[in-house]
Amino acid sequence: MNVDGKHFRTIWLKDDDPRVVQVIDQRHLPHKFVLEDLATVDDVARGIKDMHVRGAGLIGATAGYGMYIAALHAPSEFFMETLASDGEKLKETRPTAVNLAWAVERQLEAIGAAEGGFETRIQTALETARAIADEDADFCKRIGEHGVAIIEEINKRKNGETVNILTHCNAGWLAFVDYGSATAPMYAAFDRGIKIHVWVDETRPRNQGARLTAWELGQHGVPHTVIADNVGGHLMQHGLVDLVIVGSDRTTYTGDVGNKIGTYLKALAARDNEVPFYAALPSSTFDWVMRDGVKEVPIEQRDDEEVRYIQGLHDGEIKRVLLTPQKSPAANHAFDITPARLVTGLITERGICEASAQGIFSLYPEKRN
Amino acid sequence: MNVDGKHFRTIWLKDDDPRVVQVIDQRHLPHKFVLEDLATVDDVARGIKDMHVRGAGLIGATAGYGMYIAALHAPSEFFMETLASDGEKLKETRPTAVNLAWAVERQLEAIGAAEGGFETRIQTALETARAIADEDADFCKRIGEHGVAIIEEINKRKNGETVNILTHCNAGWLAFVDYGSATAPMYAAFDRGIKIHVWVDETRPRNQGARLTAWELGQHGVPHTVIADNVGGHLMQHGLVDLVIVGSDRTTYTGDVGNKIGTYLKALAARDNEVPFYAALPSSTFDWVMRDGVKEVPIEQRDDEEVRYIQGLHDGEIKRVLLTPQKSPAANHAFDITPARLVTGLITERGICEASAQGIFSLYPEKRN
Repeated sequence: MNVDGKHFRTIWLKDDDPRVVQVIDQRHLPHKFVLEDLATVDDVARGIKDMHVRGAGLIGATAGYGMYIAALHAPSEFFMETLASDGEKLKETRPTAVNLAWAVERQLEAIGAAEGGFETRIQTALETARAIADEDADFCKRIGEHGVAIIEEINKRKNGETVNILTHCNAGWLAFVDYGSATAPMYAAFDRGIKIHVWVDETRPRNQGARLTAWELGQHGVPHTVIADNVGGHLMQHGLVDLVIVGSDRTTYTGDVGNKIGTYLKALAARDNEVPFYAALPSSTFDWVMRDGVKEVPIEQRDDEEVRYIQGLHDGEIKRVLLTPQKSPAANHAFDITPARLVTGLITERGICEASAQGIFSLYPEKRN
Repeated sequence: MNVDGKHFRTIWLKDDDPRVVQVIDQRHLPHKFVLEDLATVDDVARGIKDMHVRGAGLIGATAGYGMYIAALHAPSEFFMETLASDGEKLKETRPTAVNLAWAVERQLEAIGAAEGGFETRIQTALETARAIADEDADFCKRIGEHGVAIIEEINKRKNGETVNILTHCNAGWLAFVDYGSATAPMYAAFDRGIKIHVWVDETRPRNQGARLTAWELGQHGVPHTVIADNVGGHLMQHGLVDLVIVGSDRTTYTGDVGNKIGTYLKALAARDNEVPFYAALPSSTFDWVMRDGVKEVPIEQRDDEEVRYIQGLHDGEIKRVLLTPQKSPAANHAFDITPARLVTGLITERGICEASAQGIFSLYPEKRN
């Protein structure tokens, strides 16, 4: 999407040096727009581990390009061994990121199967990296094309008046290669000239909404307003939200939506006020084994310092401030589960379906077994 | 309640100078415990306006003591005129604070009715100020005595195991003269040796939970954990919350509870998980006219800078940092309404009742008309 009027993806080959990958170092957003060169496997590993890049789709794409960089530098005598060990190094950076392991394995398979010399193998690694990134962008684009119909319909029902959409966390293009998942229908609507306005939950404790979603919507020109996570219910009570769209980190094949902590509260408010509540996700997010999200999906507990401290801009510098009493403990549950009964529908790259096994298998019949 | 092992109220006459009132300057909490002398009506007005003191009960008590200070300094020839004009000055500091106007009027009436010379009138002003503060503390104490029964019962049902209570914002002793409203049952339970643990919602955007509730619970020794406002629903889904107790800024006589923004979301989650949800309030909080809270209670929209910036401790100093993109707008709705249907009961100084006109009038029959 656009940054300052210019189109960007979140990852690309450097213009004047195709042996180097560039990304947006998202740690500095929204205060500074910093591009970063990734020239070695260590650069890539650090970039993923320290969250210069984050989001399922982007982590996968970065791992894909990381394996291309690995291929560039692997010595001829231990080529595949080096790639395998570099792949392990990448996988260890975020052990729970499913897309990461998947991208590494896909690269190892493709490079291993490539016939010919090194140049061919490196070329295969580059093509595979590009394919992973392009597929991610393409899936998100299709999510947008399917989801925009929901926005269009509401817009028509409102006689062309602005459609107010609430979103939680960042399931935007910054978390993928382009378009995003939850944001894809919003960008599609905006680009078609449909009037929309987005309520952006700040999404404590890491504030991905206030930092990333607000920034990317603003850069693309989409009208939006940042709100504290506490506000959504009140807005819905007063008819100020027409639609909720969130992303997902893991959705069970029965339709339970795992997403950033606080999503469940918004789904409850949406149900109480008859506001449609959708999750948008590429099918790689489906968990085809788990049946009961609340009981089965493990919820990561992160460092309590993320609750006790926050960072922001002070006098032009990013500073970290303590919010709580020095001795008060804090807890930091990172995700929650929105039961399928609260979800109006799922927006996937193949279309929109009910949040149920029946609905999901109707779009993904090959997964039924 | 206790601060560092010593009992404090939120307002008192200075030990060695009964012409001066002392308060805790709450702007510095939780990072610094600063006492402030209020020696003139201007000191008092600034203290209320700039929120050195806040909370319905404490604002009322401060206004009461403010009128005593006014009486001390009023010239004999224009005594009552000066008091009236000082009263107006105090009332203008927080125009929507019902207790403020009420305390000023009560003082003017009492001082005006006092027979005898100045000394008597000043003595009356002091006695009235003390009475307002003592009544506030007494009402909160009684809320605690009624509410503790709910905690005791859960504790028994759990065979003496810890009762986990979630609260939102600060309806603690810092908002009143002592005990607090939502916290009164917690302190009563703790002081009786019942095992409790309090989940403290940080309560964005002003973080009264993380700053004030966590501090006062910690100082009194009550086990507690600070959480982001997003977390409560997840905790309830997993059986980690036995009870929710919140305060209220205004409750309709039909039982709709107006309270800090985000309360409604916790009430929805409590209902979805069959967790009892109580509001604790002195009867001065009831609105005896409004019937439909969502439709009728005006919701203050505060400065969006409270959302865009936050303050905390950095290198020993309180600093303010920007959280959002510089150009992103923010909205700051300060309160929301929890419909009576989601409220298990109301804890008042006269006892516990259903959140309904019938329930409320059963405790306050003199208000039925």
